[in-house]
Amino acid sequence: MRKRVVIVGLGLIGGSLALALKDFEDCELIGVDVSQPTLRYASEHGVAHRLTSRAADVVGEADVVLLALHPQGIVDFLAEYRDRFKPGALVADVCGVKTAIMEAAKVLPETVDFIGCHPMAGTEFSGIEHAFGEMFRQSHFILTPRAESTREHIALLERMAAHLGCKDVYKTTPEAHDALIAYTSQVMHIIAVSVCDDPMLFDCKGFEGSSFRGCTRVAALDVGLWTQLFSLNAAALLKVLDRLLENLAAYRETLASGDLSRLADKLSSSAARKRQMDLPGPDLLG
Amino acid sequence: MRKRVVIVGLGLIGGSLALALKDFEDCELIGVDVSQPTLRYASEHGVAHRLTSRAADVVGEADVVLLALHPQGIVDFLAEYRDRFKPGALVADVCGVKTAIMEAAKVLPETVDFIGCHPMAGTEFSGIEHAFGEMFRQSHFILTPRAESTREHIALLERMAAHLGCKDVYKTTPEAHDALIAYTSQVMHIIAVSVCDDPMLFDCKGFEGSSFRGCTRVAALDVGLWTQLFSLNAAALLKVLDRLLENLAAYRETLASGDLSRLADKLSSSAARKRQMDLPGPDLLG
Repeated sequence: MRKRVVIVGLGLIGGSLALALKDFEDCELIGVDVSQPTLRYASEHGVAHRLTSRAADVVGEADVVLLALHPQGIVDFLAEYRDRFKPGALVADVCGVKTAIMEAAKVLPETVDFIGCHPMAGTEFSGIEHAFGEMFRQSHFILTPRAESTREHIALLERMAAHLGCKDVYKTTPEAHDALIAYTSQVMHIIAVSVCDDPMLFDCKGFEGSSFRGCTRVAALDVGLWTQLFSLNAAALLKVLDRLLENLAAYRETLASGDLSRLADKLSSSAARKRQMDLPGPDLLG
Repeated sequence: MRKRVVIVGLGLIGGSLALALKDFEDCELIGVDVSQPTLRYASEHGVAHRLTSRAADVVGEADVVLLALHPQGIVDFLAEYRDRFKPGALVADVCGVKTAIMEAAKVLPETVDFIGCHPMAGTEFSGIEHAFGEMFRQSHFILTPRAESTREHIALLERMAAHLGCKDVYKTTPEAHDALIAYTSQVMHIIAVSVCDDPMLFDCKGFEGSSFRGCTRVAALDVGLWTQLFSLNAAALLKVLDRLLENLAAYRETLASGDLSRLADKLSSSAARKRQMDLPGPDLLG
């Protein structure tokens, strides 16, 4: 039987998902967005089989609803449409924080299966005009199912991830996901914006080396999105940030001591950790 | 008249310089290194016209001596060979700190012209086996001449920079150079090693996104070299590090306050600075 898949939010991620899932199994793909320019672009570029600005018209007939809104938008959508989903439907989100979203999904009736997802891909851009169907190739697809999530729905998301070209599907808890993401992604963004706050920034224009470009690339971030991602994951992020401040302060203290052998020992230890991290493992060989 | 150019130290930078300068004007290029494996590699790959492990044999006949040693090696070399240079010779170093080197060069007699240089290029590797002649293409070549440096010697280094493929030559003071480098490069390395000191590092293996890879790429650094670069530039680096700690702490405080509009304002300001930095300017159009 033909499945009806609704993607709510056709920005960078939702648009890319739509492009990648248009030929997924036997499904009708319906795109929802409140922005007329976005819908026009989606229509002109054949992003989905059907497009609408009215979620209320399509949510009730959907077998699968993928929420590709900003995190607060997902929270709000779940509250607003809680009683509109089809019984037995799978609702999933694809945003970068999971504890707050899983918490918000508790408003849903028991007849609806909610599974948190995070396809770990993206770019520093936003908007459907930057979407591309290959975005998820070779990325991890993280799932945070609930204890009561059905096997069928998990299997469906796994097939979807395979169709997106993801290299693997990784099931974990929302808390473990959020701690991971606070360290591997969120604090990198806090570092990038903090470096750009330095008063010397513009004096150095043209003299940034590759390390500077690598560290600050993500600083030109989507403010609305990241305000939500940071604040909805504040507890985990603050822990990582405090550990970073400690580690930086330890380097500061060692440098200020003038003790070269202590500085060398400390650099040896950190550099060895980085080399160890870069050794080919199951992930890199995959 | 044929110029005799001696490059002391055939590691990543010295080896790359030698490869790039072998056909520079009418010169005899002589490579010096104390390591036999390095000399063997250099000989097998035709890195210079002549090779020797004994600087004493060639320094006295050199018109130009380029010191491509680690910073402390340069300081020691200048002290050891101070009376061996040919009167009228140009001695230059190519390392990444300048104030400490210019200070060390004061041991030279007045008959020797010393000019600090910093071709702003490199990779995260070290050793002659990673050297390549194209390393300096499109990079800046920084000069910190002394007031008494001759026009001829500055012009010679400018032609050399052009031959290396550098996009421009930028003359500045050692202090301004060191402040710039502390911010655009050194503190990026301190960030990278500090991030790798986090206890979560290995738990995240395989889940590092592009922001994490971009930020930590340089953490597997050459410990001997960077211990010297950091410690010989400690004053400038500590200033930058303190400003970074302040800027990170300001983000920490804003995040902890739970005030979303303040967080959004702060992110807007930083992101706008990054976008402003990335606007095409004279440098990017060049």
